[in-house]
Amino acid sequence: MNINGKHYRTIWLAEDGWSVEIIDQTKLPHEFRIAPLKSVEEVAQAIFTMQVRGAPLIGATAAYGVAIALRQDASDEALDAAIDLLAKQRPTAINLRWALDEMRHAVQNLPRDMRVAAAYNRAAEIADEDVETCRMIGVNGVKLIREIAARKNPGERVNVLTHCNAGWLACVDWGTATSPIYQAHDAGIALHVWVDETRPRNQGAALTAYELGSHGVPHTIVVDNAGGHLMQQGYVDLCIVGTDRVTAAGDVANKIGTYLKALAAKDNGVPFYVALPFSTIDWTIEDGRTIPIEERSADEVLKIPGRLADGTVVTVEIAAPGSPAGNPAFDVTPARLVTGFITERGIAPASRDGLLKLYPEKG
Amino acid sequence: MNINGKHYRTIWLAEDGWSVEIIDQTKLPHEFRIAPLKSVEEVAQAIFTMQVRGAPLIGATAAYGVAIALRQDASDEALDAAIDLLAKQRPTAINLRWALDEMRHAVQNLPRDMRVAAAYNRAAEIADEDVETCRMIGVNGVKLIREIAARKNPGERVNVLTHCNAGWLACVDWGTATSPIYQAHDAGIALHVWVDETRPRNQGAALTAYELGSHGVPHTIVVDNAGGHLMQQGYVDLCIVGTDRVTAAGDVANKIGTYLKALAAKDNGVPFYVALPFSTIDWTIEDGRTIPIEERSADEVLKIPGRLADGTVVTVEIAAPGSPAGNPAFDVTPARLVTGFITERGIAPASRDGLLKLYPEKG
Repeated sequence: MNINGKHYRTIWLAEDGWSVEIIDQTKLPHEFRIAPLKSVEEVAQAIFTMQVRGAPLIGATAAYGVAIALRQDASDEALDAAIDLLAKQRPTAINLRWALDEMRHAVQNLPRDMRVAAAYNRAAEIADEDVETCRMIGVNGVKLIREIAARKNPGERVNVLTHCNAGWLACVDWGTATSPIYQAHDAGIALHVWVDETRPRNQGAALTAYELGSHGVPHTIVVDNAGGHLMQQGYVDLCIVGTDRVTAAGDVANKIGTYLKALAAKDNGVPFYVALPFSTIDWTIEDGRTIPIEERSADEVLKIPGRLADGTVVTVEIAAPGSPAGNPAFDVTPARLVTGFITERGIAPASRDGLLKLYPEKG
Repeated sequence: MNINGKHYRTIWLAEDGWSVEIIDQTKLPHEFRIAPLKSVEEVAQAIFTMQVRGAPLIGATAAYGVAIALRQDASDEALDAAIDLLAKQRPTAINLRWALDEMRHAVQNLPRDMRVAAAYNRAAEIADEDVETCRMIGVNGVKLIREIAARKNPGERVNVLTHCNAGWLACVDWGTATSPIYQAHDAGIALHVWVDETRPRNQGAALTAYELGSHGVPHTIVVDNAGGHLMQQGYVDLCIVGTDRVTAAGDVANKIGTYLKALAAKDNGVPFYVALPFSTIDWTIEDGRTIPIEERSADEVLKIPGRLADGTVVTVEIAAPGSPAGNPAFDVTPARLVTGFITERGIAPASRDGLLKLYPEKG
């Protein structure tokens, strides 16, 4: 998507032909800074510190991390070490594991001197496939928005609520939850997005609002507490969120707070859709309660970065000194609260049968 | 309650015998500052800017505001003007209207030269009554905590979740939701409080955590998004929140986000109680959807105060420049999601019958 009129992906091969560059998402929305990643350790650190984040982007970044590692040392041991290092940076998103499995399969049976080229090829494919997958999520999802728009009176907008950032910054391009939004906007459908700020890291206020603003999509930031009230008041037509892992039975791990919005949507008859690529489905588990939930640093709750009036970016502490904080990063929304999934293959109910209808090869 | 070992109320008559002093809650937790209020305009401003906040404290403060106004001018016109000015500062909390009605009744039939003394008397009574009312809310509510504690294994704590600040800082002393917590803690019951940070103004992280920490009650700040996950995991035994207005049928207006926690409590079988004094009940309405919901400044969402590493308090902007924000300050939790009310008279189901059992004189 565009930033100041220039098209960007979230990750790309640098001019040297082997290192990668990313948009450092910890600096947004205050600063647009590109960061180089030149070693697998730097890639791991970028994933851990969330310079890159979002399930699909984590996968693509990790794929390049393997390629960079193999360029240094193409041995089986180096391959294993790179995959182990990268896999443990974020436990909840399944795309990370998926991408690492893809990379292993792409190189493990090759002689060492062919591994580097194969790894870079597969990493580039993963990135390109993600763009196309996300585009297709939009093609499928925009139908939902179009249906709602058709029921609106002239001048009324379709109101979509989203949580966290499942935008193009979370992917390589387009986004998952935002892809239908961008495509609806580009098709001239009047719509407006309620952007949950998404504490503690504020990916909604910092990233989703930034994305939507850059693309010209009307939106309003609200605190995470507000969505239930907005739904009660009839101000939300549709919820679309992303996900870090969907089980074979349709349970959805996503950014902490997603479950609360799904409850409110159910209570108010608002459709609640989850947009995802095939790589986010974990076919090995049924019950979402078995998904490991990452516990992150209390500092993410207690400290917050922001701009002073003069533009300087600082980090402030917001609670009393010594206050303890907890920081579970994800929650699990049971399939019963999800209206449906939007994937690159189409739209289906949030259930084992629904998923198998889209992916019969997994049956 | 105590701050650094010294007992405070949230509002008291100054040494001059006519102006009042308050704890400026917009400065907490970074600075403990006492602010003088010397005119009805200053009182109105303190309520509007939330230097004083919390339904019961707003009522007590407004009562003193009327007394201060009458000291300046004891005419009927001045009384009306003071009440009008104060009433419009916060539309949702009913205690404000209740306290102003009390003040009107206390003085309106008196000759002018008796009005000032009567007004100060009634304001002092309202403050004193609030202390006793809140103490009794604790006496009644602690039974719930005691029952849960009795079912725990040795060494296990009772986990209470609360939203916003319905603590002593929201009242004159004790608090509503916190009164059972303080009394349980003082009685030696092992308990721990999950403190919702309560965006946008962070009354949980800034005030509730500060209070509980000052009193030595174990607690953990979590983002507002986390409560649902904590309940799913079985980490919450009981929710207790305050309220700004309860309808005669038991619907509950409270800080934005309360509804989401009530939904999660219902979904996970966690008891969800609302603690309130009699003055928070609006017997004139049934349906919570008719309660006016205050919309506050977008700046409260987009800017946040905090401490730099050197202790300086600054305000930072957290979203991209120009991002629009919405800020509904309250939501309404339908009675069907509330397990019961804890009042100074006892505990009752959240329904018209439940309320009438506690307040038969309203039948």
